[in-house]
Amino acid sequence: MKSDNTMKNIIGVTMGDPKGIGPEIVAKSWLAMSETERAQFRIYGDRNAIDAAAQLANGEIDPKAMVITSSTAGHMGSIPDIEAARMALSAINAAVDDIKAGRIKALVTAPVNKHRMQSVHRGFTGHTDYLAQLSRAQDVVMMFFAEGRHDTGSGCSFIKQLCISLVTMHIPLKTVAKAVTKERVVVTISRTYEALCRHFACPEPRIAVLSLNPHAGENGSIGREEEKIIEPAIQAARKRGINCIGPLPADGIFNRLAEFDYDGVVAMYHDQGLLPAKLICQGRCVNITLGLPYIRTSPGHGTAEDIAWLGRADPQNMLATLTLTRRLVGWTIEDSGQQIVR
Amino acid sequence: MKSDNTMKNIIGVTMGDPKGIGPEIVAKSWLAMSETERAQFRIYGDRNAIDAAAQLANGEIDPKAMVITSSTAGHMGSIPDIEAARMALSAINAAVDDIKAGRIKALVTAPVNKHRMQSVHRGFTGHTDYLAQLSRAQDVVMMFFAEGRHDTGSGCSFIKQLCISLVTMHIPLKTVAKAVTKERVVVTISRTYEALCRHFACPEPRIAVLSLNPHAGENGSIGREEEKIIEPAIQAARKRGINCIGPLPADGIFNRLAEFDYDGVVAMYHDQGLLPAKLICQGRCVNITLGLPYIRTSPGHGTAEDIAWLGRADPQNMLATLTLTRRLVGWTIEDSGQQIVR
Repeated sequence: MKSDNTMKNIIGVTMGDPKGIGPEIVAKSWLAMSETERAQFRIYGDRNAIDAAAQLANGEIDPKAMVITSSTAGHMGSIPDIEAARMALSAINAAVDDIKAGRIKALVTAPVNKHRMQSVHRGFTGHTDYLAQLSRAQDVVMMFFAEGRHDTGSGCSFIKQLCISLVTMHIPLKTVAKAVTKERVVVTISRTYEALCRHFACPEPRIAVLSLNPHAGENGSIGREEEKIIEPAIQAARKRGINCIGPLPADGIFNRLAEFDYDGVVAMYHDQGLLPAKLICQGRCVNITLGLPYIRTSPGHGTAEDIAWLGRADPQNMLATLTLTRRLVGWTIEDSGQQIVR
Repeated sequence: MKSDNTMKNIIGVTMGDPKGIGPEIVAKSWLAMSETERAQFRIYGDRNAIDAAAQLANGEIDPKAMVITSSTAGHMGSIPDIEAARMALSAINAAVDDIKAGRIKALVTAPVNKHRMQSVHRGFTGHTDYLAQLSRAQDVVMMFFAEGRHDTGSGCSFIKQLCISLVTMHIPLKTVAKAVTKERVVVTISRTYEALCRHFACPEPRIAVLSLNPHAGENGSIGREEEKIIEPAIQAARKRGINCIGPLPADGIFNRLAEFDYDGVVAMYHDQGLLPAKLICQGRCVNITLGLPYIRTSPGHGTAEDIAWLGRADPQNMLATLTLTRRLVGWTIEDSGQQIVR
């Protein structure tokens, strides 16, 4: 019988949509881990899908490492869409039940296909919103952790770690300006601050808030959202004791990565945040949902159905996700000197 | 007496706003060059400002390298705003006159202050538009050249060179969607293609066209501008024989820089293009105006008036601009195997 503490640190990993690369990257990642690491994870999904994925990588996954949420037969590429969606949903639901019951502490999700999921859950717009609904969580925020090694141009290199959060997410660009409200900017700053303190052992996080318009609006001549919305939001966050500055022009802030001294960045919209996040880590950024009652992460990519079940899926982003999640589960502000690298 | 050919290759450099770092970075760059390089440039500006800037760097600029466009007295930090603007404008006008007369071939501009310039030229919105007016040029396009060295993560590094053009420029984000028209996208693709062929010795340029919305609109569920505007524009450009693909999600394209195999990228708006451009080259990107009857470049930064006349201005971006301009002036499709590095 394991101690409570050990049990609490178990991380659930859902296999994702079996018509995508989810099962394959989960299986490959598990097979690449040490015994000690493996013991920290439970894979939620279809027995047949997970076994088939492990076979693709010439391996086998210990049945004790699995929580079987369905059991099908046949080749995964040819199962009906609705069945694939049901399998993906069952895995998520079972993992969330286990989180609520305290059997696991954190959740890593492999990618699903939003459109296919809508056939089994009306209005499914993605893991983030669905998980928020299941926990009745308000004001969830998408944050991305990016870590990359960069050349200084003089023969040496440095590691850059950065958390980038989004004020708005998957909406058309033409609706972004209206969706950037003072309240939402404050929530995004606050959630980012809390996550840096709590999960990244950052004692005094510094947060840079980006502007919506080019050149931070250039004193109002290229838009007024900076002075009307973003500046008041920054003032409000400062009153809560959060060390944040801005609004800063997005194209000016990442210029000299080696000298970049913020722990978190709050971006106003999807591409403004994801572009630097993915560039910094060469595509391997980890998505972290803030505002849920538990830690939830996922790799930054999609289902990549064009290469599913061919054995060619690259598990590096999933591995980075699992590694980060192990840290997040173990890291608290009390322990260790492991901090985010500015 | 120099030959016609040599004369044609002379590059004019305007000193910019004397209340900013323009004169200092121009002087420092000139002083850092070899005799051969120096002979290829003429500095346009105020005699007093240029001399004072050279003194800041403990140097002296050969009067033969200057084209004196005004002659003031006193410390530059304390001259009236309107006089500073007049000096900056005189330098630009004189250089453009020399371009039109065939006395110089290309123009490099140091930064000016848009608001201050408006006091001497109503409606001045920046060099790009002003120079377009002077030459009655239509459909000018801002393109940025970014060059950086990047770590592969396994001990070696590679050089990445990339040209990124903007469909829309200095406008509020909320007006971007409306300003992205099919015609403008086609013009931007075409100008980028021509510049790559003509100035970058790129025999068969490959151009990636970004999407406006996250995830390239995700089949219309996050906006329809991709199918209504950008895709038809790409089709039209292809009919002209241009090898371009897209619309591609902006956050997906720069993921693996080492494997990035486009010569040009067409971005829909300012931050979408400038963010990756500046990240790739650590802030030292070079602005190139396409659509003028001559080559015009400038460093990617502004006047930085807070550090003007303190001797602390970093000339690296100006030096990169001058170096690139020398190449652009010399490079034609006929000569050499010097190509953009994919």
